[in-house]
Amino acid sequence: VTEPARIADASMYAHLWGTPESRAVFGERARLQGWLDVLAALARAQAAEGLVPADAARTITDHADVAHLDLDVVAEQTRVSGHSTLGLVRALQAVLPEGVHRHVYVGATVQDVTDTWTSTALRTIVGLVRRDLLRLEDALLRLAAEHRDTIMAGRTHGQPGAPVTFGWKAASWADEVRRHLDRLDEAAPRWAVGQLGGGVGSLAALGPSGLRVRARFCAELGLSDPGTSWLTARDRVAETGAVLAMVCGTLARIGLEVYDLQRPEIGELREATRPEIVGSITMPHKRNPERSEHLDTLARLVRAHAGVLLEGMVGAAERDARSWKAEWVALPEVCLLTTTATALGAELVEGLEVDVAAMRRNVDEWTGSEQVLARLTPSMGKHSAQAALHEALRDGRAAGLTMRESLHALLPGADDLQPDPGLCAAMVDAVLARARAARAGSS
Amino acid sequence: VTEPARIADASMYAHLWGTPESRAVFGERARLQGWLDVLAALARAQAAEGLVPADAARTITDHADVAHLDLDVVAEQTRVSGHSTLGLVRALQAVLPEGVHRHVYVGATVQDVTDTWTSTALRTIVGLVRRDLLRLEDALLRLAAEHRDTIMAGRTHGQPGAPVTFGWKAASWADEVRRHLDRLDEAAPRWAVGQLGGGVGSLAALGPSGLRVRARFCAELGLSDPGTSWLTARDRVAETGAVLAMVCGTLARIGLEVYDLQRPEIGELREATRPEIVGSITMPHKRNPERSEHLDTLARLVRAHAGVLLEGMVGAAERDARSWKAEWVALPEVCLLTTTATALGAELVEGLEVDVAAMRRNVDEWTGSEQVLARLTPSMGKHSAQAALHEALRDGRAAGLTMRESLHALLPGADDLQPDPGLCAAMVDAVLARARAARAGSS
Amino acid sequence: VTEPARIADASMYAHLWGTPESRAVFGERARLQGWLDVLAALARAQAAEGLVPADAARTITDHADVAHLDLDVVAEQTRVSGHSTLGLVRALQAVLPEGVHRHVYVGATVQDVTDTWTSTALRTIVGLVRRDLLRLEDALLRLAAEHRDTIMAGRTHGQPGAPVTFGWKAASWADEVRRHLDRLDEAAPRWAVGQLGGGVGSLAALGPSGLRVRARFCAELGLSDPGTSWLTARDRVAETGAVLAMVCGTLARIGLEVYDLQRPEIGELREATRPEIVGSITMPHKRNPERSEHLDTLARLVRAHAGVLLEGMVGAAERDARSWKAEWVALPEVCLLTTTATALGAELVEGLEVDVAAMRRNVDEWTGSEQVLARLTPSMGKHSAQAALHEALRDGRAAGLTMRESLHALLPGADDLQPDPGLCAAMVDAVLARARAARAGSS
Amino acid sequence: VTEPARIADASMYAHLWGTPESRAVFGERARLQGWLDVLAALARAQAAEGLVPADAARTITDHADVAHLDLDVVAEQTRVSGHSTLGLVRALQAVLPEGVHRHVYVGATVQDVTDTWTSTALRTIVGLVRRDLLRLEDALLRLAAEHRDTIMAGRTHGQPGAPVTFGWKAASWADEVRRHLDRLDEAAPRWAVGQLGGGVGSLAALGPSGLRVRARFCAELGLSDPGTSWLTARDRVAETGAVLAMVCGTLARIGLEVYDLQRPEIGELREATRPEIVGSITMPHKRNPERSEHLDTLARLVRAHAGVLLEGMVGAAERDARSWKAEWVALPEVCLLTTTATALGAELVEGLEVDVAAMRRNVDEWTGSEQVLARLTPSMGKHSAQAALHEALRDGRAAGLTMRESLHALLPGADDLQPDPGLCAAMVDAVLARARAARAGSS
Repeated sequence: VTEPARIADASMYAHLWGTPESRAVFGERARLQGWLDVLAALARAQAAEGLVPADAARTITDHADVAHLDLDVVAEQTRVSGHSTLGLVRALQAVLPEGVHRHVYVGATVQDVTDTWTSTALRTIVGLVRRDLLRLEDALLRLAAEHRDTIMAGRTHGQPGAPVTFGWKAASWADEVRRHLDRLDEAAPRWAVGQLGGGVGSLAALGPSGLRVRARFCAELGLSDPGTSWLTARDRVAETGAVLAMVCGTLARIGLEVYDLQRPEIGELREATRPEIVGSITMPHKRNPERSEHLDTLARLVRAHAGVLLEGMVGAAERDARSWKAEWVALPEVCLLTTTATALGAELVEGLEVDVAAMRRNVDEWTGSEQVLARLTPSMGKHSAQAALHEALRDGRAAGLTMRESLHALLPGADDLQPDPGLCAAMVDAVLARARAARAGSS
Repeated sequence: VTEPARIADASMYAHLWGTPESRAVFGERARLQGWLDVLAALARAQAAEGLVPADAARTITDHADVAHLDLDVVAEQTRVSGHSTLGLVRALQAVLPEGVHRHVYVGATVQDVTDTWTSTALRTIVGLVRRDLLRLEDALLRLAAEHRDTIMAGRTHGQPGAPVTFGWKAASWADEVRRHLDRLDEAAPRWAVGQLGGGVGSLAALGPSGLRVRARFCAELGLSDPGTSWLTARDRVAETGAVLAMVCGTLARIGLEVYDLQRPEIGELREATRPEIVGSITMPHKRNPERSEHLDTLARLVRAHAGVLLEGMVGAAERDARSWKAEWVALPEVCLLTTTATALGAELVEGLEVDVAAMRRNVDEWTGSEQVLARLTPSMGKHSAQAALHEALRDGRAAGLTMRESLHALLPGADDLQPDPGLCAAMVDAVLARARAARAGSS
Repeated sequence: VTEPARIADASMYAHLWGTPESRAVFGERARLQGWLDVLAALARAQAAEGLVPADAARTITDHADVAHLDLDVVAEQTRVSGHSTLGLVRALQAVLPEGVHRHVYVGATVQDVTDTWTSTALRTIVGLVRRDLLRLEDALLRLAAEHRDTIMAGRTHGQPGAPVTFGWKAASWADEVRRHLDRLDEAAPRWAVGQLGGGVGSLAALGPSGLRVRARFCAELGLSDPGTSWLTARDRVAETGAVLAMVCGTLARIGLEVYDLQRPEIGELREATRPEIVGSITMPHKRNPERSEHLDTLARLVRAHAGVLLEGMVGAAERDARSWKAEWVALPEVCLLTTTATALGAELVEGLEVDVAAMRRNVDEWTGSEQVLARLTPSMGKHSAQAALHEALRDGRAAGLTMRESLHALLPGADDLQPDPGLCAAMVDAVLARARAARAGSS
Repeated sequence: VTEPARIADASMYAHLWGTPESRAVFGERARLQGWLDVLAALARAQAAEGLVPADAARTITDHADVAHLDLDVVAEQTRVSGHSTLGLVRALQAVLPEGVHRHVYVGATVQDVTDTWTSTALRTIVGLVRRDLLRLEDALLRLAAEHRDTIMAGRTHGQPGAPVTFGWKAASWADEVRRHLDRLDEAAPRWAVGQLGGGVGSLAALGPSGLRVRARFCAELGLSDPGTSWLTARDRVAETGAVLAMVCGTLARIGLEVYDLQRPEIGELREATRPEIVGSITMPHKRNPERSEHLDTLARLVRAHAGVLLEGMVGAAERDARSWKAEWVALPEVCLLTTTATALGAELVEGLEVDVAAMRRNVDEWTGSEQVLARLTPSMGKHSAQAALHEALRDGRAAGLTMRESLHALLPGADDLQPDPGLCAAMVDAVLARARAARAGSS
């Protein structure tokens, strides 16, 4: 194995940019095994239609095992020929009886193998993302239910405003996750298709039974038949990238909130930690929102690669290697990073520490002006009440008072004002009901 | 009206960056009327729940007409207050009886107005895009059927390869358009929702009947109820941007193909032209693929703005003006450009001139080696046949022969080789059947 | 004037997306006047070389005034001909004596006019950006000097760490601004060039004196001669976009810091406000960091458009309208938004309110563990000291103590620990010295 | 070594996404050695100022060899501590005498090590890019000189227009490359700096001699002193990314031209090939412009990562791991891909086959209308001449005539019209002169 030049594959840091499960999908051996499985499925499908002897198909299937192949030969022949799959074909032929050689990779082209395998890889990846989104949704729904009535400051423009509840915030995240689950389900029939067509995609090399071969080939791999070749119809790939980038966007939104509310000056949320974790060698009190930050990092990189996939839709004629090779890098990257993000996001939310007292403290300290305004308006009129409030807050700040102290100075009875989170609880209930119905209706 | 600083709104060029229909959605008066309609719907919904006198709601509805408002006041008060909607509210109040003033914009926040209006604007825009995609699909299906068997060179890596049919190429485009129609339909329930929640989205200012007010408010405008506030849950917007960027990607793919096949050296397709069109003042023979080029230009800009929308998903707490104001620019831009692209794409395909003779000439001249190889292989073996072919083609080129002449020199019987487009026609049939079934099943 | 469909040109909001100065550059009349000036300069340069009668050049120059032209004709002829400048040429010819018609726009192509004008527009824009960056640098240097020793918490990962000084933070911003000034100066010789070459850029239509005509033409407009045509060599444009996007990146960084430090829970910085400003109608205490937020919004949009310009470098052959028309939108957008951002950034920093007491309060409350650690280590050893600290902080938080109180509990003498901002002041001096030297050496 | 999950590091394909030289910079061992070198330089600089015993510094320097370290320990401790460099520090301490442990990594923070190393890595990478750009420029200048007068069709909008020369096209590319060399040289003083400051960048942990330590530390590594800390001042990194993305943009432009002119229907350029290269298994005549395509692929990915770097400029306070960790992936990626592109681009241009005869054939066949127009205009007037031309070309096409045949039909003397490439040759001379002067003046 070549030493990786990418830090995302370095032994020190690989865990930040892939999960064991998703790395297992895209490692070279796994990919080659996937390609071999496709070649074997092709031979079997061709055998079923009489294009290849049944014996040959069986022999190919039996030998299509990456453990038997000489990967150095694969790599060398790839470089020598400048052809993306010929090295693999030659290495496979090298372990086959000579009479079977000509039945390998008949009538297929590179993308028939790689696109078809990619669909099977996506099936695994989307499965992982789905599973971890469900786990995340679960944790969010629990938070939403538990903190349905936990008062905290709503914040707009980075400034505490009127109160909300923390459960309502969690419900907003859960609702967004639910929409992603719907998107993933809706997109699946589009990307879960095989590809078979030969050089230009016309199926010419397979003769009159080509459509039947393609149908069997796809079925062998658990994929749907694509109807027509899609060598340059990359909307399927672009859509997958876009949906996964959206998933990461939601995770980064959650991360941003934890990052901000974990500031000690606010102190309302805290990521779980372990005793061995070292936030800072020199500043021992530091407790960094590492997971939250990383969710944003991952989302940036996924967005960038999703953009490459969108650009790749503009492909020329029957094949465009410019788009296609950019996909080779960008699509797995999107998958590796998104699986990391969903796992990390679930872990973050499951371990989240909610400081209910700090939430209440901040509400008491930094909100309430809307209520004082409401109480003053009937007697003073809205404009005078607003002016009085502005003045009181400005003078109070100058005098070192907290906002709450300034409000008391203005309206002695302000003490008995209770924070009003409006209908947050009812909205939590609506989100919970919707999510539970959706979960009951699907896996 | 301020003179626009954007070339996309210049009188000379506005037609390149918007259609009359989509421009009518986003012009300032239309937008303000839309916002006024939202304010009126809010008053009526509140009246129905007894929060606002029925008379006041009627009066507001009657006066909520942009033609009655002083737009200079709106603009000036917007600048003075630094508040996005207060200028409009003040201008509306100025035409209302004083007793009604306090019933305008009660318990709502800027995004309640703007997001809700945006959903109604998206409804119009997606309707336009859908209509023109259907028109485009129609034209593509006609081309697919008409040229189901029209032989042309398949091209990979910019090089003619084995033959395909032009109808099959058109079918691939149509199939992609059909998937976009599905995506638009699936996404609609997500974005076609209203927004109402007040300052932080808690509905606190509307009292216990807030959820009912919101439901009525959405229904008044033909939108669904969102369940919970979505002030920073911008996945709906990001998804819309991504789907429209994908639509433009397909249109740019069609454009790229026309651009390349309109090269006179290839000469297989030509955009329709009109006598008044001047391709080049000094080079009168030039006939430029202007529409095709412009589809690519539009796709680039839409992709860039769709990226801004994706980035905007990472919003802070209950409102994040950083994302939201970027949306103010990016989402309408995506809409204006995509409606332009779909209309232009439909026009391009409807007027496309197909040069069947040139297609055949290029097939004869530049393809066929795969057949000569197939014919030589049985007697010579694959490797020798390949080597002989390479040599013949290289020597022929040196001698100024066309590829076809070189093939004849190698295999005198090459004359009777017929180009074989494989199963292109059968794949056209499959796409046509699928599209017709889908069209029969929907509008 | 067509009603603009872009919100960035709406009368309510145009001030957020352009400055009066930069809008004056890109408005339609200004642009057309610029194009006319280029046509007149071309005629004069051609007259000097005897290609056009001197009288004709004078007449063209005299009539090349947008006020004389019928803009409806320009627009209509543009749409009819599908040609980008022919409408303008025809409208100009319409106000010229017939004998002069054929001396207008001789041997030139669209991009000769538009690219050359763009260079003159960039000269104005970069001048504005430079001026406002100098103004911003000035304000930052003042802050750096004034607050050279103002202690505040350094923050990493959103968490207060060891102390720094506010002047040092401002110096870091100033240093970055200075590098942008250098970049702008270094790039200028590359973009400040004219373009003249005719249809394919060969200068064929100008005959043997073409190079001399081009040199005069450029000189007439205060631009350098480009050496060779650059119709598809768009690195100049891409570089401009990249540098301006970097400028906006720095401004957004400043904005992000103000946004975070203006949180009332932190309270160290505040944007200036005016009494008329309404942060929130319902929450009167809200004081939003509107400028800071908007700097981020602008930076996002500029980055997106800069990406379009980078993409545009990949142009085909002698002209590629796909890149070029995307530039028509993207480059002015970058310019309009960046001039807005620099003006806004300067205004933000000039009016910034620095709460020295709050800075000190936060330092006292949230930093100091590194010093306690240093004091405990000699007696306890590093590991035991770290463990003791962790325990004390955890227990203190559980008991509702501030961090400082917890430290006192652990180390009674912690009272006399003074925050140590290290060499921040010396680094401020270094930055000030460098900036002053640079400013002394240039304008 | 972990099996890489990135295809860009797969043994089959790594050569497409990195060069041996640039991979050697970013491999894990090389990176760790670089980090160790930084730690050793820090110890020596501290020893020179008396902060660390000279013996300890020598011992650290002697043992700072990645070959001595247990990389499994490094990786495990990194994961356990969640700290980016602590694993390395612990592994280094493990091979040092105990008394020296406390002199390792004194007063430094993660970014002090990683940013400083990155600057040294950039020095190597920019050196490689510079070298290969010079090699490319050399090849382009040779082509420009050799084909100074080689007539070919200029093409605009994908359509042959008036003639140019191939040398002039090559000169345009060379001129752009020269501007990149200038950009690289101008940017170098900005990025070629070290970083040292400790936790928040204040240098507090180094005491009063901190600035001197930093100066020595930078000098030890051949870098300049940064003046002030730049932990979140990432303009240096963003600029590097932007310039390298521009370099790739130019290479992709060259690639696009070769891709288009290598179409057999045009046939003017051809990439070099080797007998072992297999363009297509089934279509033996195919000769694919693989290098040209790949230059575009690389440019897309580099642009995407350069965008991530631009986004990373908006960093919070004294450290922002969100930007910084995205850089960890994006900056090396930009470097690996750009070195690949420059090497590939140089190889492409050096081996380019220019088919002078095909160029002339296409000129004769597809250009000339501008000359016929010029000849007809005096007698017929411009409008009638244009109309006659349009008609002749349209009728000719309908009758199967080439454009040249149609022109002859219209103007019998058209035979003696010679293609006029205008002043292309003189512009080539100007570019050559400028490049030679620049090359004479630098390395």
